[in-house]
Amino acid sequence: MNRLLLVAVPNLSEDNRKRIYEASSRNGLEVCFCDTAAEAKEMQARAEIILGQQADLAENVPLLRWLCTPSAGVDQFAKCDVFLSGQAVLTNSTGAYGVTISEHIVMLLLEILRRQQEYTEIVAQRQWVRDLPVRSIRDSRITLVGTGDIGQETAIRLRGFSPSCLIGVNRSGRNPGDRFDKIVRSENLKEVLPKSDILILSLPGTPDTYGMLGGKELALLPDGAVVINVGRGTVFSQKDLEKELRNGRLFAALDVFEEEPIPADDSLWTCPNLLITPHIAGNMTLPYTVRRIIDFFLEDLDNYCAGAPLKHCVDLKRGY
Amino acid sequence: MNRLLLVAVPNLSEDNRKRIYEASSRNGLEVCFCDTAAEAKEMQARAEIILGQQADLAENVPLLRWLCTPSAGVDQFAKCDVFLSGQAVLTNSTGAYGVTISEHIVMLLLEILRRQQEYTEIVAQRQWVRDLPVRSIRDSRITLVGTGDIGQETAIRLRGFSPSCLIGVNRSGRNPGDRFDKIVRSENLKEVLPKSDILILSLPGTPDTYGMLGGKELALLPDGAVVINVGRGTVFSQKDLEKELRNGRLFAALDVFEEEPIPADDSLWTCPNLLITPHIAGNMTLPYTVRRIIDFFLEDLDNYCAGAPLKHCVDLKRGY
Repeated sequence: MNRLLLVAVPNLSEDNRKRIYEASSRNGLEVCFCDTAAEAKEMQARAEIILGQQADLAENVPLLRWLCTPSAGVDQFAKCDVFLSGQAVLTNSTGAYGVTISEHIVMLLLEILRRQQEYTEIVAQRQWVRDLPVRSIRDSRITLVGTGDIGQETAIRLRGFSPSCLIGVNRSGRNPGDRFDKIVRSENLKEVLPKSDILILSLPGTPDTYGMLGGKELALLPDGAVVINVGRGTVFSQKDLEKELRNGRLFAALDVFEEEPIPADDSLWTCPNLLITPHIAGNMTLPYTVRRIIDFFLEDLDNYCAGAPLKHCVDLKRGY
Repeated sequence: MNRLLLVAVPNLSEDNRKRIYEASSRNGLEVCFCDTAAEAKEMQARAEIILGQQADLAENVPLLRWLCTPSAGVDQFAKCDVFLSGQAVLTNSTGAYGVTISEHIVMLLLEILRRQQEYTEIVAQRQWVRDLPVRSIRDSRITLVGTGDIGQETAIRLRGFSPSCLIGVNRSGRNPGDRFDKIVRSENLKEVLPKSDILILSLPGTPDTYGMLGGKELALLPDGAVVINVGRGTVFSQKDLEKELRNGRLFAALDVFEEEPIPADDSLWTCPNLLITPHIAGNMTLPYTVRRIIDFFLEDLDNYCAGAPLKHCVDLKRGY
């Protein structure tokens, strides 16, 4: 029986399929492309390698040695025996999403500062109102919590808007790529919150980040501050944030939520000062993103077949 | 009778009023702040200097020697005798709007590429659709027609998004501040249009720019190209553009129009692939913008009172 690579990423372009096919042939692997979850389920018991993101791809996989998720987040795999036991390794696609998510962040930020949701409503009613006071990124104090690929790509883009400072917050205290004016360690987050006109969160969903910003932390932000979250919804107490939005003190743009989809009767849908997008900042419809994901995977496919260490390994204890 | 400075810019902050007041006192001028057009009309016959933007401020002004408009555009003053005769000089506030307009441009561009108007509608209906194909600024070929303050500030910001190129188009062939990868002269615009995925227009309304982009020019743009106009609506044949939007070939974001406000029954209101904002890209609600306008005015007030040449003079023949 041939060694099997199962590709459970739907709607791959012909070009990307061809690249995977050629690399597999070169390495003596059979490859099977599954466009539906049902197809994948039928094949996964035979797979030695899987490229896919559904959590149940890691169940009933006696032959699995390596799973690569096209996502950056790996929270859904945190408790999978197949990785915890050491039977298989897990890699992810961190680094593929910085471009698209940073563009989403800049768009959301400008929409809030320039009151674009209100102007959209005005135009929809064929009115010609022009005097809503707007704000600017220029001279704003910006704090980015999370300084990985997304935080760095966002910092690169925001730099051109001349903010008064770009502060990075992370656990290591290191300044990756020198993208930030200063790095503050996570344990000192409270010190920087009162000086953050704009707070951008791109954190993975881990036990460490769970509930990192409760009511007390949000209360430290200055009046009128803008909070943007594209990481995981669990970083907030969502109720505490909603309180600050409803009392008009803060503004927020959220792409991720405690529960997704947001329940139909959730009060968040009608919350003022809030811009909602349905977890699309890093979706896979951008060809650039998919190309990067396949680049990373093929790089590690060669490593795997050569018996070399994989480059994009996840540390499940750390959570990213 | 004292020499009078008339300030017809409504809603100036206390700080800006104080700065004008102090500079006037220092220069032996009386200053009168008018918050309404009616107040200004009553005082303008006595004014030697006016800071204001309504065209009728230049009528019945026997003592006027200098009018400074807080706008960048001066089309409304193009035929005023008081300037054409040499009785008074006209200065404008070019350079005050680059920051706010470039932020507006980046926002509009990202909204179109990321289909944010559709997502806004999806969220308004509490739906959870996530798979609209989006596009990116990265690797896009961008052409900026107009390389003044607005074009340059936009280029600075777009550079951080890694476009494949930033081409400037102007009359002189000069590359101001070296902000552009290449400069193409206006007369060669047609050569660059087929290579423009994104076309950004920030041109003044002059006889030279009138109808610069007719149906033939728009037809040269590649399929799916995005056109953004923040200069003057007269640069287009609006009907020709609408045709290209309705047949789905092009996308546009317009902040300026042939007629403003857009007439209530104009077909533009229901045009697909079009994002409308009501001439707000460069409005004066941003404190940074107003501070710059007053900076420029006070700089020239000192020049004027010292008998030195004014720095922000407009060449009415050229139109900017």
